[in-house]
Amino acid sequence: MRPERLTAFSDGVVAIIITIMALELKAPHGDDFSALAALTPIFLSYLLSFIYVAIYWNNHHHLMHACKRVTAAILWANMHLLFWMSLIPFATAWMGDNHYAATPTAFYGVILLMPAIAYKLLQTAIVHAQGCDGELATALGRDVKGVISPLLYLVSIGCAFVAPWIAHAIYVLVALMWIVPDKRIESMLSNGPRA
Amino acid sequence: MRPERLTAFSDGVVAIIITIMALELKAPHGDDFSALAALTPIFLSYLLSFIYVAIYWNNHHHLMHACKRVTAAILWANMHLLFWMSLIPFATAWMGDNHYAATPTAFYGVILLMPAIAYKLLQTAIVHAQGCDGELATALGRDVKGVISPLLYLVSIGCAFVAPWIAHAIYVLVALMWIVPDKRIESMLSNGPRA
Amino acid sequence: MRPERLTAFSDGVVAIIITIMALELKAPHGDDFSALAALTPIFLSYLLSFIYVAIYWNNHHHLMHACKRVTAAILWANMHLLFWMSLIPFATAWMGDNHYAATPTAFYGVILLMPAIAYKLLQTAIVHAQGCDGELATALGRDVKGVISPLLYLVSIGCAFVAPWIAHAIYVLVALMWIVPDKRIESMLSNGPRA
Amino acid sequence: MRPERLTAFSDGVVAIIITIMALELKAPHGDDFSALAALTPIFLSYLLSFIYVAIYWNNHHHLMHACKRVTAAILWANMHLLFWMSLIPFATAWMGDNHYAATPTAFYGVILLMPAIAYKLLQTAIVHAQGCDGELATALGRDVKGVISPLLYLVSIGCAFVAPWIAHAIYVLVALMWIVPDKRIESMLSNGPRA
Repeated sequence: MRPERLTAFSDGVVAIIITIMALELKAPHGDDFSALAALTPIFLSYLLSFIYVAIYWNNHHHLMHACKRVTAAILWANMHLLFWMSLIPFATAWMGDNHYAATPTAFYGVILLMPAIAYKLLQTAIVHAQGCDGELATALGRDVKGVISPLLYLVSIGCAFVAPWIAHAIYVLVALMWIVPDKRIESMLSNGPRA
Repeated sequence: MRPERLTAFSDGVVAIIITIMALELKAPHGDDFSALAALTPIFLSYLLSFIYVAIYWNNHHHLMHACKRVTAAILWANMHLLFWMSLIPFATAWMGDNHYAATPTAFYGVILLMPAIAYKLLQTAIVHAQGCDGELATALGRDVKGVISPLLYLVSIGCAFVAPWIAHAIYVLVALMWIVPDKRIESMLSNGPRA
Repeated sequence: MRPERLTAFSDGVVAIIITIMALELKAPHGDDFSALAALTPIFLSYLLSFIYVAIYWNNHHHLMHACKRVTAAILWANMHLLFWMSLIPFATAWMGDNHYAATPTAFYGVILLMPAIAYKLLQTAIVHAQGCDGELATALGRDVKGVISPLLYLVSIGCAFVAPWIAHAIYVLVALMWIVPDKRIESMLSNGPRA
Repeated sequence: MRPERLTAFSDGVVAIIITIMALELKAPHGDDFSALAALTPIFLSYLLSFIYVAIYWNNHHHLMHACKRVTAAILWANMHLLFWMSLIPFATAWMGDNHYAATPTAFYGVILLMPAIAYKLLQTAIVHAQGCDGELATALGRDVKGVISPLLYLVSIGCAFVAPWIAHAIYVLVALMWIVPDKRIESMLSNGPRA
């Protein structure tokens, strides 16, 4: 199987995930500003999740560019990533509906943590398929962001039960940290033979 | 990243947006004409939004044709556009459900205004990536439609609180104005080296 | 714009239409056979619509194969077709929910008639873009099926108010008639320079 | 029609099926762990179905790789497969909502059995189009997994009414059996002229 097909399928799933999240924003019954304003927490959690899914789409693309052939391990690591991402709309809706209460905030952290781990596994599967001294392995180096993010999610999950706003601040912070695309892989690709 | 991938992903999101809007047309409980006729306002707002999303899809395609490489700015400008477009089904449903009341009508204008601004930003990001004297910059010229539309949406938002029907008339008018594809970029492309 | 892009976008919309129809099959509250059996009319109307959408996808593909360039008329004729097709899930749900009552059955006929007309317009737009003596015009010949179908839908709409079962029989009949792909265009393509 | 188009359309439908299943996981009303824990059966049935759909996507890809041209029989065999797969979200929701009661468990088996039969028919149509001594026919050999699975589903359907947990165990077992991609076709493709 060519990586292009796996990427196209993943793109389709991600496009649907990012769009159906907006379906949680149900038209309110009233027709005035207060009816609209009541949706603010749902809107904000949608905005945050939209950014996270966009980041994943972007990084996933950079990663798959470095993938030359699809092994069974890569295929299932990718499905595993899509599975956890498919739960983001659920976690988003639960957190938004409950005005960022403690448990839904912690659960949102879990649902950010799982795709982060899944992404790490996918990265490992791709590196493994290329040999440990391959381009991608070199390009990733110590992968600081990929290690820090899961740790920060873990901190958030703990914080959620003490002071949910700290958890929310961390979620926003990690998103900002990732909005910058993965320069390492990008520069490898532009220097390497595939560029 | 090649522009083709960004276009394919955007196509997926737009295809979902345009289709899930129709889900707002829920099968009525009665089985006679009056039950169906009661859905007329929802149907008409769906029709209007379908046309707007179709226009965006079309113009987006012409624009991306002129994009030779995807920078981080273009990527996020495009995601920003998709974010606001993903709210069109919500605004459509709210306006249709409330029979074009003042506030939902004004809000619909806001949700037309935001993608218009986002599209302008995307255009700017693409022009910027090519240099200010690039083909696209020349082709766009003064971009009369791109400047008039946001102004008309602003007027509509104001009108909605006085006489909603004027706002609706403006929304229809702007849609008609845009149904004609962007001749400037099109003619550039057919004269230019990419054609 | 290349026809491939328009086809890809249409494919996306059609894939979503055909799949979200299944969402109307909501899991019943009971957990026995009778709860499931109560969904039979919704299931059968879903099956019929699935076949119709599959036929459109298939014929649309054959038609677009014969399209060499996309004019504004073709673009909007295609959007017009997608608009009416996007209402099929709604008509399907309304007919199924109401156990094939007269008005929903007639309305289903209307929602089959409109895409049939839209398809005809799209065909005309493509023939027009190629010149009236083009390959496609010759291949289509008198287009018997394309003329008979709308007439049969019109008959069905009338019958629905007298004896709905005749309308249903006609809907099934027309579907069977179309399941055979359009041999004329197919044979043109395999003889012509594009094959 | 090129097999690529049929594959792309099928990919779109499968991507939507796999994603909308997650919509059944509706955000609970409570904001504590118990509200979340109540969704466990729905989550587990979603997980199982996600794996099944992923297996179909994967095997479908391998199969379509071996397809050189699309006949009408292949087209409709593929649509038939997609139809039954589109009912997986419904069966999943019904089984999850009813905590794996007997009838929904048996019905889930039916909804696994039908795509298995449809897949077999598609395989036959592709083999037939190539001639019975073609590469694919040789590669498939006795197709042990493809014969055992439907039989196991039949056993499950029977077991569901006696001891549902046996049926669930069989569903999990068959999924595990299929997670390994179809080595036979894969090795044929890597040895054959298409590789």
